[in-house]
Amino acid sequence: MATNLNHPSNKESIKGVEILSIGTELLLGNIVNTNARWLAEQLSMIGLNHYRQTTIGDNAGRLSQLIKETSTRSNLLITTGGLGPTPDDLTTESIAKAFDQPLFAREPIWEEIKKKLAKKRSYMENLSLKKQCFFPKDAQIINNPKGTAPGMIWQPKENFTILTFPGVPDEMKAMWEESAYSFIKSNFSDGYIFFSNTLKLSNIGEATVSEKIKNLLDLKNPTIAPYASLEEVKLRITTKAKSRSEAKLLIKPIKEELQEKFSKYIYGEDDENLPTILIKELIKRNESLVFAESCTGGLLSSQITSVSGSSKVFKGSVIAYSNELKNLLLDVPENLLNTYGAVSEEVAESMAIGAKNKLNSDWSISVSGIAGPKGGSKLKPVGLVYIAITGPNNETVKIKKQYNPLRDRNEIQRLSVNDCLNSLRLILLSNK
Amino acid sequence: MATNLNHPSNKESIKGVEILSIGTELLLGNIVNTNARWLAEQLSMIGLNHYRQTTIGDNAGRLSQLIKETSTRSNLLITTGGLGPTPDDLTTESIAKAFDQPLFAREPIWEEIKKKLAKKRSYMENLSLKKQCFFPKDAQIINNPKGTAPGMIWQPKENFTILTFPGVPDEMKAMWEESAYSFIKSNFSDGYIFFSNTLKLSNIGEATVSEKIKNLLDLKNPTIAPYASLEEVKLRITTKAKSRSEAKLLIKPIKEELQEKFSKYIYGEDDENLPTILIKELIKRNESLVFAESCTGGLLSSQITSVSGSSKVFKGSVIAYSNELKNLLLDVPENLLNTYGAVSEEVAESMAIGAKNKLNSDWSISVSGIAGPKGGSKLKPVGLVYIAITGPNNETVKIKKQYNPLRDRNEIQRLSVNDCLNSLRLILLSNK
Repeated sequence: MATNLNHPSNKESIKGVEILSIGTELLLGNIVNTNARWLAEQLSMIGLNHYRQTTIGDNAGRLSQLIKETSTRSNLLITTGGLGPTPDDLTTESIAKAFDQPLFAREPIWEEIKKKLAKKRSYMENLSLKKQCFFPKDAQIINNPKGTAPGMIWQPKENFTILTFPGVPDEMKAMWEESAYSFIKSNFSDGYIFFSNTLKLSNIGEATVSEKIKNLLDLKNPTIAPYASLEEVKLRITTKAKSRSEAKLLIKPIKEELQEKFSKYIYGEDDENLPTILIKELIKRNESLVFAESCTGGLLSSQITSVSGSSKVFKGSVIAYSNELKNLLLDVPENLLNTYGAVSEEVAESMAIGAKNKLNSDWSISVSGIAGPKGGSKLKPVGLVYIAITGPNNETVKIKKQYNPLRDRNEIQRLSVNDCLNSLRLILLSNK
Repeated sequence: MATNLNHPSNKESIKGVEILSIGTELLLGNIVNTNARWLAEQLSMIGLNHYRQTTIGDNAGRLSQLIKETSTRSNLLITTGGLGPTPDDLTTESIAKAFDQPLFAREPIWEEIKKKLAKKRSYMENLSLKKQCFFPKDAQIINNPKGTAPGMIWQPKENFTILTFPGVPDEMKAMWEESAYSFIKSNFSDGYIFFSNTLKLSNIGEATVSEKIKNLLDLKNPTIAPYASLEEVKLRITTKAKSRSEAKLLIKPIKEELQEKFSKYIYGEDDENLPTILIKELIKRNESLVFAESCTGGLLSSQITSVSGSSKVFKGSVIAYSNELKNLLLDVPENLLNTYGAVSEEVAESMAIGAKNKLNSDWSISVSGIAGPKGGSKLKPVGLVYIAITGPNNETVKIKKQYNPLRDRNEIQRLSVNDCLNSLRLILLSNK
């Protein structure tokens, strides 16, 4: 996008960048503000720190007031929301009003909007959409490749620029990538980039990780930050540098230190996850995989098949939720089910072997447990899960897990799936 | 919680409520701000409108400045984040500084924190945690039942009260529910509540829904708002009333109008979803259900088994990802697979019948398609999905879907699962 805005001095005088999310539905708690997070990530990737995010409703007075306020303390404001055709959508006019500027219709944009509408099926072509072609006189337009509402780049006063985007995430992202990104990068970035590299750890708690890297948490460039989710701990190494190659050099020694400290826990980096790692490894070995699931009810299979190309190693599964099907489809002997119960080491083992044989595979994982909240007993409480893994050499590894019974059904299912996948990963590692 | 705060006049002079989220990780885009959304929902349920949400980093100066600013325009501020033990956690001291007040250690709280730490395994019991027992002199403490960091209720000046919470969602929610909720309700609520009732629609687009309710979108009490996700459209009816029963009366006529307009699309309300609806109906009929999944790879089974009690109707599934297993486990004839290919009406039908017979069930759903992004061809593009459903009368309903090939793998899998479940719902409906 060519820029005709006259603010060569911006780079030297960056006071701050802010994000403003506009929409009463955000204040009502109807939707989560994922736009602000996405924009924050984008800004940090081009090395622009922003200092404040605000969310406000569709109220003209409050909106104008806030914009005026922002213009006194920051020099770049990115807004999302309020560009639609309804009377509630007040962003452009409130911004203009904050600086006492009128709006003018841009006929070519209106023609464009009408063309876009013609393609859409049932959408009301009404005049209220004409609103979307009104802009302050000297505003530049940000084309919207995915919807009717264009945004604008407008500098209402010295050292203050506003970029507006619709609230629909897809439209906002497409507009950012097509035009806004390069505009901001060339006009506001100081030439540095932020670069991150994330190590992913399994089978270790956040407290233990934090304890072990206490000495590294104060580093300034790169910085290290741990993030924990239910299944894993991530260590994100972030650096500010002139280029990607410089960033990688800065990260290298720290990364090596972490790799040494956590060697047996690190299973991957960045976009990798346990399914992609396993699929890659099994493709390399030319070995196939099947599952026999009970308490995870299909979640284990669906994690593997969420990866495109999984069919190269994954042949299929049996979800044997009932005892009848454990016997019918996996050949688990009835007397085993009666003697030990479906949630037992013996049945898990038999399920794994049955699946390997009947589904004709190199590797097989079975999982049987009590995901709750009902179905637990004193001897077999909620959270008790048995996993069995059998491979080409026909040895079966048996794993017993007792998750916190207070965890909810979905958490116990997710933890079980994670332990199935990570256990196979460790077996493959020791089996190279 | 007993309150000793002296602001009886608050109720008459509510200027505004604000939420402040504190944490550099939010500004970096590392995490989504789900706390603000949760609090917004809570506030709106007790009839308190808030006008602004702000997110700011862990920076003492900017934080103090912002708190001062807020105290001039609002009279209730709820903060999350920055109560931890590290040097970055600056919330309490920055708030105190905004009003030039010192902090004092509260020894009983420190004793409490030490007791809590003793229970935790490997956590560093270091003096930095002592920070968490420092508060302004006249602040009330909000007990934290799930962690070490307490919050506070503090009125630093007339008509301005601050409540602080940690950023960890579980701790914040527990504290809100245990103490803050009743404090805010009795001191700030005007006695009205907001009450919502959501109708859930399947198989209809948002544009069509909006078009049909144009005349209702301007209503003031109740209000109607449509929300669309990949699989469904929700219509949320919200009303402000003195009580739940009054709210229900206000909602009734609108709800009836919507139910008439969208009768065949509405599948449920509020917390209901397609799996819970189907399970309830099949329990009533005392009929069982199995699946034969190909392109959905376990997602269909995992949706059903995410519901506690699903084992009453769901017996299990075969995930037949490879053609070999379609033949081996579901008796799909090899010549059918060779003649029509795995993604065909014929194979889907054979899979459904095979699953019903081999898994010995009343109902069976099969699904075979191309989830992409690879594997599509001119004749069978990405997004082509065949579904077959067979029931107690051994009639098989066959459904062909062509989803937008530009959708990603996960979206095509989710849409397929939704159509499997909704199609069975419609068959059961017409089959009463």
